[in-house]
Amino acid sequence: MNRIDNIAATYSEIQKEICHKLESADRKGQFGETKWDKKVGSGLTRVMENGAIIEKGAINFSFVKGDFSKKMEKILGEKAEKYAATGISSILHPHNPHVPIIHMNVRYFALDNGICWFGGGIDLTPHIIDKKEAAWFHQSLKNSCDKFNPSFYPDYKKWADDYYFLPHRNETRGVSGIFFDRLKPDQENSFETLFNFTVELAKSYPNIYSELMKNNHSKPYSEREKEWQNLRRGRYVEFNLIHDRGTKFGLESDGNTESILVSLPTNASWAYRYEPEPDGFEEKTLHLLKKGIDWIDFGNK
Amino acid sequence: MNRIDNIAATYSEIQKEICHKLESADRKGQFGETKWDKKVGSGLTRVMENGAIIEKGAINFSFVKGDFSKKMEKILGEKAEKYAATGISSILHPHNPHVPIIHMNVRYFALDNGICWFGGGIDLTPHIIDKKEAAWFHQSLKNSCDKFNPSFYPDYKKWADDYYFLPHRNETRGVSGIFFDRLKPDQENSFETLFNFTVELAKSYPNIYSELMKNNHSKPYSEREKEWQNLRRGRYVEFNLIHDRGTKFGLESDGNTESILVSLPTNASWAYRYEPEPDGFEEKTLHLLKKGIDWIDFGNK
Repeated sequence: MNRIDNIAATYSEIQKEICHKLESADRKGQFGETKWDKKVGSGLTRVMENGAIIEKGAINFSFVKGDFSKKMEKILGEKAEKYAATGISSILHPHNPHVPIIHMNVRYFALDNGICWFGGGIDLTPHIIDKKEAAWFHQSLKNSCDKFNPSFYPDYKKWADDYYFLPHRNETRGVSGIFFDRLKPDQENSFETLFNFTVELAKSYPNIYSELMKNNHSKPYSEREKEWQNLRRGRYVEFNLIHDRGTKFGLESDGNTESILVSLPTNASWAYRYEPEPDGFEEKTLHLLKKGIDWIDFGNK
Repeated sequence: MNRIDNIAATYSEIQKEICHKLESADRKGQFGETKWDKKVGSGLTRVMENGAIIEKGAINFSFVKGDFSKKMEKILGEKAEKYAATGISSILHPHNPHVPIIHMNVRYFALDNGICWFGGGIDLTPHIIDKKEAAWFHQSLKNSCDKFNPSFYPDYKKWADDYYFLPHRNETRGVSGIFFDRLKPDQENSFETLFNFTVELAKSYPNIYSELMKNNHSKPYSEREKEWQNLRRGRYVEFNLIHDRGTKFGLESDGNTESILVSLPTNASWAYRYEPEPDGFEEKTLHLLKKGIDWIDFGNK
């Protein structure tokens, strides 16, 4: 499991780079640093609160090791004694409802029986969907994917549609993105390819979001748009607490609660049987929260 | 399973009674009615929004029947073909942070193999704990319990301490209350005793809360107390979405999402690594969010 140390070192460097780039784009907020050490491992949680554009954002790095429990065996369908995992995960919540929420995660998981895999994803949750922007976001992801394998974008975009989905609401979380899990090195995709793919994604993340910040942060917004933002944040909370695998794994494996739940927004709200105004921006957004949209095609029409 | 129809009819009547009493205590808000029918059964969701005292409150009645799935078999450790269940569940969120959040649930579950049981509970979540009021609340529950069996209060108070608990925060949800599940009729407690016990609890619920509304709703409050209320509501959201059995069961069994998640507050907030001011009301409340407090004794000291 020696190479995990190198991967962890690279991810840790990228965490710094992401923070620098986002601080430059925000121009006011700074990412604080909290190191944590628990039995399971250690991490560095970097949180920005009340930036100029980012209301609450976190870039977490962690590196954990431990016994491969019976529960993990059952969930993952693998037999081993020990595991080790390292990754970066990030969620950014902006003040302005015209700036989308974004999420990124890359991770590497290794067992002492020699089996290992990569996982990760990036997805965008606009409070108010701008289809041209969604197309640009997907094109950026596709460009990153295409450097490694032409099947990555179509396959992982479909996976994201299925993963970033709230069955109890019959809604996607936003305009999707890409998601992949348990990518094991094989003849088609070498270990290096998969590792470099996660590096490419993590490095592209602050560039993508800086562009979205720049284009939207100075747009004026109404009280109605702010209320709608809080309702969409309520859905984000539902996804993270009910479905998100990272959150579940973290809380169940006795991870660092503050670092895991820093993904939740500063404020969120819920309304019983909310009905959007006909033809309003809320209804237009709701109509687009569904699987299977080819955003690149749709947004460029 | 014929007697479940009678239980459902009684619970349905009590739902009406609870709504009437709470409307009288609120003096402004009215409970709307939404009937729902799904494959799994039907229910009546009654919701008050923007009352004078109650910001958002729900009293739900449901009566569902269906195939006893492999998953239910595993969770419940019972073998059967069909199940039926009926119950009332309620959560009330007030405007004023000096009025506590309250929750009540009673339910009856029957299998076609003849096995049946009752479950339920009442618990109180003050945003700011008043120990005398917590003692009065527990004394009221004890009085109700003692009419049926002197072991109910101590046993179910302990159960509530364990159940209304957020392990990832190492905090109880509030000042506890009583909780019980899978109480099967036996030589000590007949079917009638258990049924009447749930009826007593459900009927006492609006009386208890009316008293708490009356005593607290006109207390002035600060912005700081309101912010604290929103943070406590954030914890309430965490409990409901991560731990609450009713919410899980409801969402997994394709129940009515709007009726299940009406338990969430209008607004909630989260702060990263929140630190209370030394000796402030926030710190005093946090120190009391633990298991094993004998509230009747502690609050009367």
